[in-house]
Amino acid sequence: MILLMYDPVQAHLQRLQQAAPDQEIAIAHSLAEARALIENAEIVLGNRYFIQSLPFARKLRWMQSNSVGVDIILTEKQLLLERGVTLTCARGVYDAELAEHTLTLLLALFRNIHLLRDEQVAHSWQRHRLRTLHGSRCLILGWGSLAQEIARLITAIGGHVAAVRNQPGNSEEQGISIFGQQNWQMQLAYTDALIVCLPKTPGTHHFVNPAILNQLPERAFVINIGRGGTLDDQALLESVQAGKLAGAALDVFEEEPLPASHPMWTEPRILITPHVGRSLEGPEFKWQPLFEENLARYMRGETLLNVVNYEKGY
Amino acid sequence: MILLMYDPVQAHLQRLQQAAPDQEIAIAHSLAEARALIENAEIVLGNRYFIQSLPFARKLRWMQSNSVGVDIILTEKQLLLERGVTLTCARGVYDAELAEHTLTLLLALFRNIHLLRDEQVAHSWQRHRLRTLHGSRCLILGWGSLAQEIARLITAIGGHVAAVRNQPGNSEEQGISIFGQQNWQMQLAYTDALIVCLPKTPGTHHFVNPAILNQLPERAFVINIGRGGTLDDQALLESVQAGKLAGAALDVFEEEPLPASHPMWTEPRILITPHVGRSLEGPEFKWQPLFEENLARYMRGETLLNVVNYEKGY
Repeated sequence: MILLMYDPVQAHLQRLQQAAPDQEIAIAHSLAEARALIENAEIVLGNRYFIQSLPFARKLRWMQSNSVGVDIILTEKQLLLERGVTLTCARGVYDAELAEHTLTLLLALFRNIHLLRDEQVAHSWQRHRLRTLHGSRCLILGWGSLAQEIARLITAIGGHVAAVRNQPGNSEEQGISIFGQQNWQMQLAYTDALIVCLPKTPGTHHFVNPAILNQLPERAFVINIGRGGTLDDQALLESVQAGKLAGAALDVFEEEPLPASHPMWTEPRILITPHVGRSLEGPEFKWQPLFEENLARYMRGETLLNVVNYEKGY
Repeated sequence: MILLMYDPVQAHLQRLQQAAPDQEIAIAHSLAEARALIENAEIVLGNRYFIQSLPFARKLRWMQSNSVGVDIILTEKQLLLERGVTLTCARGVYDAELAEHTLTLLLALFRNIHLLRDEQVAHSWQRHRLRTLHGSRCLILGWGSLAQEIARLITAIGGHVAAVRNQPGNSEEQGISIFGQQNWQMQLAYTDALIVCLPKTPGTHHFVNPAILNQLPERAFVINIGRGGTLDDQALLESVQAGKLAGAALDVFEEEPLPASHPMWTEPRILITPHVGRSLEGPEFKWQPLFEENLARYMRGETLLNVVNYEKGY
C-alpha cells in the first residue's frame, strides 16, 4: 500500500495509480489516520505526520520526502536503518525558486534595498554610491544542484563565483573553481559575498563560526539560504553589529520561527526573510513529477532518484 | 580649447591630452569659471555648469554629455541648433549598473522584499506563497542598449521578455518579440511586469497613462528605471492603492527629489529607490573611456559615438 501524507490533485493521483496499478493508494488527512494507515504501508510519499507515525509502520520499504534537507527525518535514522527503509529526498525540485530567492537577497544587499526601504518609511531621499554584484566575488559553501544554479545566475549577471565542496583537494567544474577542505579558507579574504548553501548534518553544525567570519573583509556580505544552524547566527549578528561585515541576508535560522524577541530583527544591515526561499505552495505541488517518476522506478525495480546517504546525511 | 565640466583623475586627463595633443584643456571648477572659459571652448565634456554657461559660448562645436538622457540639455535645443553644436550622450555607459538595479527591483517585487522588510521591522514571521520572475512575462517599453541588457538578465533567470519600440510594425531581435506602435497594447493583458525604460521627450510624456495601466492585470507590477514623467506617477499610485495593480518599484519620478509630503512614500506596495539605478560615482568616472574614444574620433574627423538626434530627443 502507498500512503500519501498530503492531499493530491486528481491528475497527480491518477498518474501515481498508473505507475503502480496493483497498489492501493491511501491518503492520511490527520495524524490519527496516518498512524492507523502506516501499519500496512510499503511506501510513504510526503513528510507530514511521517515522523510521528513511523513507530507504527510494519512493512515500510521506502519513504519519499518532499523536502530537500532530511535532517528532521534523520532524527529517526536508527529506526529507519533497523527497518531497512530507503529514504529519498526532493533534491532539485525547488532549485529554481531557491536560486532566484538567493539572487534576490544578494542583489538586495548590493543595491541596499533593505536600507532604502527604511529610508522610504522615513520619507528620506538620500542618494548613495551603491555596489554591484557585477564584478564582485561570491564564494558558495556547498556544491549541490542548488549551488550550481545559484552560480549560473551570478555568472550571468557578471559576478565571479567560486565554491567549496566536501572533498580534500581542489577541482574545477563548469569553469568554476571548487575548493576542497585544505584550501578553501584562503578564499575568504577575497570574498564580497559568502553564500551558505550547506545541508544540516552533525558535521556542518556552526560550520560558519567566528573563526570563519573573522577572515572575511569588512565589505563582505553573508547569505544563508541552506539550513539554520550551519551558520552561527549569534556570531554573525555580533560581526555585523561590530562593523566587521557589511551586512547579511538570512532566510533560515537556528531557531524558527525567529522569536519576536530575537535581536536579529533589529539589526538594520541584516535582511530577514521568513524561510520563503522555498515558499508555500499547493495544491499543485512542485514535487509531483519527482514522486511520479520515482514511484515508476520503484515499481520497475530500478534505482531511485535522490537516495539519501545515511552516513552523509544528504 | 576643450573644457571639462568635472575634475578628471590624472591618467584620464593624460589620455585626453594624448588624443588631442594640440588642444588646450581647461577645467571649470565653478559656474563663474565655466562662464569665463566656455567662450573659447570648441568642445565641452560633461554636464555640470553647461546649461548655465552655454549662452556665453562662441566657438562651441561639440558637447559630450555624461548622462544618457539629454532632456535637460535639450531645453536649450534651439540655441544648440542655431550654433550647429553636435550633442553626444553617454548611452551604454551605465547599462551594467542600471540593468542590475532593474533586475533587483523586479526580484524585490516578485519575492516581496519590500513587504518582508516591513514585517521584519514589526518582528513578524509570516510565511507566504511568493511568485517567481522565472516563468513570468515582462514587457519592456523602449528598446535601447539598456533595455537589451535588462532583457538578457531576465532571460537568463528564466523570465519571458517582449519589448516595445518606436516603430510602426513588429519585428524580432535576439529571439525577443519587439512590438511596434500598432500592436503593443495587446500585450498588456498578458504582462506580469511592465518595465518603463523610455527616454524623456515631448512624445513620451505620460506615455504610461491610466488607459495603459488599466489594461494590465491585477497581478502586474510596474517598474520605472528610465526617466520620470514618462510614467504618470499619480495614476500609478491610484491604481496600486485601488488594488488594480500588485505593486511597483520606482527609481525615477516626475518630481525629484520626491518631496517628503508626497503620498507615494507611504504606499507599502510601492518600493522607492532615490534615482540610484545609476548611483553616485567618482573620482574615477564610468564615462572616461567613452569621452577618450569620442575625443580621438573628433580629432580624426570620424563619426562620433552616441550622437543625439535633435528631432527624436535621444
